[in-house]
Amino acid sequence: MAARVEVADPADPRLADYRDLRDVELRKSLEAEHGLFLAEGEKVVRRAVEAGYAPRSFLMAERWLDGLSDVLATTEAPCFVVTEALAEEVTGFHVHRGALASLERRPLPSVDAVLDGARTVLVLEDIVDHTNVGAILRSGAALGVDAVLLSPRCADPLYRRSVKVAMGAVFSMPWTRLDEWYDALPALTARGFTTVAMTLAPDAVPLEEAVRGLDRVALVLGGEGHGLSPRWEQSADRRAIIPMRPGIDSLNVAAATAVACYAMERR
Amino acid sequence: MAARVEVADPADPRLADYRDLRDVELRKSLEAEHGLFLAEGEKVVRRAVEAGYAPRSFLMAERWLDGLSDVLATTEAPCFVVTEALAEEVTGFHVHRGALASLERRPLPSVDAVLDGARTVLVLEDIVDHTNVGAILRSGAALGVDAVLLSPRCADPLYRRSVKVAMGAVFSMPWTRLDEWYDALPALTARGFTTVAMTLAPDAVPLEEAVRGLDRVALVLGGEGHGLSPRWEQSADRRAIIPMRPGIDSLNVAAATAVACYAMERR
Repeated sequence: MAARVEVADPADPRLADYRDLRDVELRKSLEAEHGLFLAEGEKVVRRAVEAGYAPRSFLMAERWLDGLSDVLATTEAPCFVVTEALAEEVTGFHVHRGALASLERRPLPSVDAVLDGARTVLVLEDIVDHTNVGAILRSGAALGVDAVLLSPRCADPLYRRSVKVAMGAVFSMPWTRLDEWYDALPALTARGFTTVAMTLAPDAVPLEEAVRGLDRVALVLGGEGHGLSPRWEQSADRRAIIPMRPGIDSLNVAAATAVACYAMERR
Repeated sequence: MAARVEVADPADPRLADYRDLRDVELRKSLEAEHGLFLAEGEKVVRRAVEAGYAPRSFLMAERWLDGLSDVLATTEAPCFVVTEALAEEVTGFHVHRGALASLERRPLPSVDAVLDGARTVLVLEDIVDHTNVGAILRSGAALGVDAVLLSPRCADPLYRRSVKVAMGAVFSMPWTRLDEWYDALPALTARGFTTVAMTLAPDAVPLEEAVRGLDRVALVLGGEGHGLSPRWEQSADRRAIIPMRPGIDSLNVAAATAVACYAMERR
């Protein structure tokens, strides 16, 4: 059972995990240094704990305790009980969803472990926006993706904003980060996947055609601004496009991913 | 040619249109009262003017003038030239994309005008998030939607955040707001559209089936939290679902819309 600890001093060092949540740069270094990540809201906190992440502590106002009592019963981590004003002072924002938890990161699984048994995979190159990474995980989980691989420069799926947007999918979807960028796609081809790069390249064919009848597919998606690197675009087995009306900007990467997952499910 | 006006005093009343852009409530009332909306970034400012919206004024730092000189040449509205620090002081945030314009709203078109010739329509009920409204417009424009109708409580498509996310689609896509909520869907049926409600209702069929072979379709999407109202769910001609893996949260409404538009294009 989590020990309930009332905290009234915003400078209390035990609240260090929860400081300045809106300061992205500070949080990145703090979370990396301490190997932690934050979950926000009853539902996401519950899923993180159920997925086996070890809580370091919880932070919430009195009124959120009941809803999480079953989760708190499973752990010895302290639960800091604070006023909503104090929570806001420490975190730097109004915690709409009530409860926060700080949890231990785990070593990332190997690519082998993540791909074991997978038939439909997303491979993300340099998607740097936390919201997009979270949205891709959420749509992928709903629409039949088995695993997600992230290039070294993608945004962190366990950053608070990604976790929130993914609505728990970051805990249920197998994912890991690629150590290597240059030969990442040929390595997937060697494992028996057909790599299909989403691109506006002139030789791109409609996605439905590109994936028709394929068994193991790795769909490759590029970053928000410039799309895929030339290396990834060219080292993929196939290039594909989502047909769009002429004269229109490309889809947002999260929307494109949702459409692509839907099309792949029907291959 | 827009008159260039150097402004050095953040309290200058001529900058009133640009104040406190992060204060959603204040902006809503200010923009309604003055009948204005804001466009942000060179591309979006250009598209708003090209779409025929009359500029009230522009606000930018010196270095953005050249990129917009052709647009500024088409209007007599003043261009306030300020330092980036002053722009930040007035607007309340760092204007990453450089240029801002304040433009006159126009009377919304009639439903008749918006539906004229349309074959694929989106009907949004109480989508209150500006980002989602913008994302839906952008995906709809790319994926073959001819018009968008918004229920009275939907978020404003011309709010700065919606405009930014829509990437100009808010200017190219015909849209208007429904005056009437209760009988909005039967009214569309009477106009020859088959209304298809996206819902988790037990009688929902896969979307592909629901739209197969239809000529004029109005796809009906509900709000972020609770989905469609019972009235809209039941007054639609058909109910449809995007097939998803079991045990998974529903898709985000913007992702669901992108998938649905893609499926409708293939009907």
